Amino acid sequence: MTQLESAIKGITTPEMVSVAKAEEIDVDLLRERVAKGTVVIPKNVLRDLKSPRGVGEGLSVKVNANIGTSGDFPNVEDELVKLRAALDAGADAVMDLSTGGDLPSIRRTILDNCPVPLGTVPIYDAAVTIARERGAITRITADDLFNTIEYQAKQGVDFMTLHCGITRESIERLRNCGRVTGVVSRGGAFLVKWILTNDAENPLYERYDEVLELARKYDITLSLGDGFRPGCGADATDRAQIQELIILGELVKRAREAGVQAMVEGPGHMPINQIATNMQIQKRLCENAPFYVLGPLVTDVAPGYDHITCAIGGTVAAVSGADFICYVTPTEHLGLPDVEDVREGVITARIAAHAADVALGKPAAVKWDREMSKARRARDWKKQIDLAIDPVKAKKIKELRSKETGDVCSMCGEFCSMKVVDEYFGGAINAEC
Amino acid sequence: MTQLESAIKGITTPEMVSVAKAEEIDVDLLRERVAKGTVVIPKNVLRDLKSPRGVGEGLSVKVNANIGTSGDFPNVEDELVKLRAALDAGADAVMDLSTGGDLPSIRRTILDNCPVPLGTVPIYDAAVTIARERGAITRITADDLFNTIEYQAKQGVDFMTLHCGITRESIERLRNCGRVTGVVSRGGAFLVKWILTNDAENPLYERYDEVLELARKYDITLSLGDGFRPGCGADATDRAQIQELIILGELVKRAREAGVQAMVEGPGHMPINQIATNMQIQKRLCENAPFYVLGPLVTDVAPGYDHITCAIGGTVAAVSGADFICYVTPTEHLGLPDVEDVREGVITARIAAHAADVALGKPAAVKWDREMSKARRARDWKKQIDLAIDPVKAKKIKELRSKETGDVCSMCGEFCSMKVVDEYFGGAINAEC
Repeated sequence: MTQLESAIKGITTPEMVSVAKAEEIDVDLLRERVAKGTVVIPKNVLRDLKSPRGVGEGLSVKVNANIGTSGDFPNVEDELVKLRAALDAGADAVMDLSTGGDLPSIRRTILDNCPVPLGTVPIYDAAVTIARERGAITRITADDLFNTIEYQAKQGVDFMTLHCGITRESIERLRNCGRVTGVVSRGGAFLVKWILTNDAENPLYERYDEVLELARKYDITLSLGDGFRPGCGADATDRAQIQELIILGELVKRAREAGVQAMVEGPGHMPINQIATNMQIQKRLCENAPFYVLGPLVTDVAPGYDHITCAIGGTVAAVSGADFICYVTPTEHLGLPDVEDVREGVITARIAAHAADVALGKPAAVKWDREMSKARRARDWKKQIDLAIDPVKAKKIKELRSKETGDVCSMCGEFCSMKVVDEYFGGAINAEC
Repeated sequence: MTQLESAIKGITTPEMVSVAKAEEIDVDLLRERVAKGTVVIPKNVLRDLKSPRGVGEGLSVKVNANIGTSGDFPNVEDELVKLRAALDAGADAVMDLSTGGDLPSIRRTILDNCPVPLGTVPIYDAAVTIARERGAITRITADDLFNTIEYQAKQGVDFMTLHCGITRESIERLRNCGRVTGVVSRGGAFLVKWILTNDAENPLYERYDEVLELARKYDITLSLGDGFRPGCGADATDRAQIQELIILGELVKRAREAGVQAMVEGPGHMPINQIATNMQIQKRLCENAPFYVLGPLVTDVAPGYDHITCAIGGTVAAVSGADFICYVTPTEHLGLPDVEDVREGVITARIAAHAADVALGKPAAVKWDREMSKARRARDWKKQIDLAIDPVKAKKIKELRSKETGDVCSMCGEFCSMKVVDEYFGGAINAEC
């Protein structure tokens, strides 16, 4: 049985117990949300998953790190170092987006070393392999696609991005849109090309019942991909994007009816004032499915800083309903990230997730902020470092810039405002701490 | 005459012409806003200011960089390097917050090298000097304070942070608040200590008419400081903060009646869901004065990354009405920034300012994003680098990670989604670009 089927039957799985404990919420409440489909717990039935995670309603906002080889950087060893960096930095999930080297073997190695849910985009493997074998990605067959999905399912992949909403209908809407950047999803682009070249419907849509059958068998959580996500602010919230979302909403409903867990992927690039609207419309159109956002990046002009444009949009998204943030690294739009970029990307996305949790009043997040603030007031540097979201970086800066400054830092020195007032007030202002 | 007095009389100053040109808006409209006080143009009458800037209603969001010596790092040479870095990175204004070394001489040097508006916090100089001479900052006199303000005015300082809203009344409200981090403004802390030790009212409040007289004489733009800004999320939007804001609103009104330009400073640390409310209440309580925000930082747990927590809050603030963002660097809460931190801080704050301008539909900002997106679609790398908010960093990453990858980058290689679809569609989707 899938987590969803168990929950519907009132059965509490070990994964639900684990997630409820980590989130400090009642396990019955969690199970009810899994049963409704507003929470997913991605875990392949064949996987020995050390640290399950819950994604969705009322849970802490989660962060995913993408790793994976490319044609230019095909070595799995490099990706294992990135995997370790992502986990050390606190990633809740990892996606293997490899397109270079021996893909099944790379995936196996990453799965074996990944204690958190692992996701993939199966069409990458199918397209890359077919392109190598037959010279063109359009020569892929529907059966190739399903075989790839099943192969990866048997390997133990926990969640899969499938662009089931790229259909003849949504492509027609795209044509009528007048986009600036067109299609910026790799999986989406492959399918658009396949559909138009072969003059046939997307097999992932046309044969969606078979997708559901496979997903149910292995309890793969579907991550319904947004192949028409906006690739720039000017394309945000256009008809192609919303058309695809309508289709994905229908597919969420069918997934639940089949006992399959599903979440929905979202933008992309988007001006900040459109983000809350997008979260609301996604939740409404997609049956309150967990929402997995790729940013959104709030401006297009900051290559080198897109971990930051992602954190800005991601915080607003998460406070407005998004449940899961896919990190972006400083190399986005410029190249494949290296290990330092992965680390920076995860920490930055975690800041966004945590800032949203604070605003939403989630007790653990609020407490963490308060403990840090008390340590700051007390000028307890050891505690400030320990509580930092990145203790290594905080310690390094403190030692570099404020090595011998006693209980204050080199910014204000003895004119430290908290110290100036503490001397006078004592604990008076601080009464309620 | 001050810019405000000129505007009220319908006189267009050279600074208004310069600002209107830079902002691509009608100079009469700009003058009307200066006359209302919803736009300020900080420029001391004695200053030879190369690049005036307008701050406020309908103008692009501006970014300030703080530089300045401290007791631990007292060399003006270091600060000149930071000044150059801040200007190169695109800072619209600079504040000299020096507290170490020969303060008047440092200020003179910085003024001479700064083509954009320069601000100070005069009480720092008064407090540091008196603390050195008389052993305690509380031994400052009201006349010392006014002499310092006038001295700095004669040097040509364009805008000054004055914490006029720290009064016996607002201190009493602070006492009743139960704050976690108490007072985190240096100027605020000095004044609290002064008021309580000397059992006397804040001279900047009690003798506000004299403040206005000086400000009017030199056309110093008052930046009414928020001495009780929250220093952590838990203290945000409390009674002490809002009490001070009410007082500052009254002082804005009096400033305008005296022909003095005024803006208001704001938080601070603040959960993201309180930011829009704060912007609205500030505008309402303070007669729509330009709002100069210090962040807000949306979580307390990210020392080493507070340029990012500032950018998240700053974007939301600016899209909700803030006009001017004070940068925060990665060393915030840990020590004085070095030159790389200054550069990173300015770029990050500019991303926030620009992302807000895009969302607010300001034509130049929207056009910049669109041009970048078109270059991205065309895989025109030279243009992408040229248009990047930090071309140096973008170029460095591109060369490091995608040196010989042709027209695509190493992230997707030949599987570049835009390329995959372009081959098929040609310009079809792109019709309206």
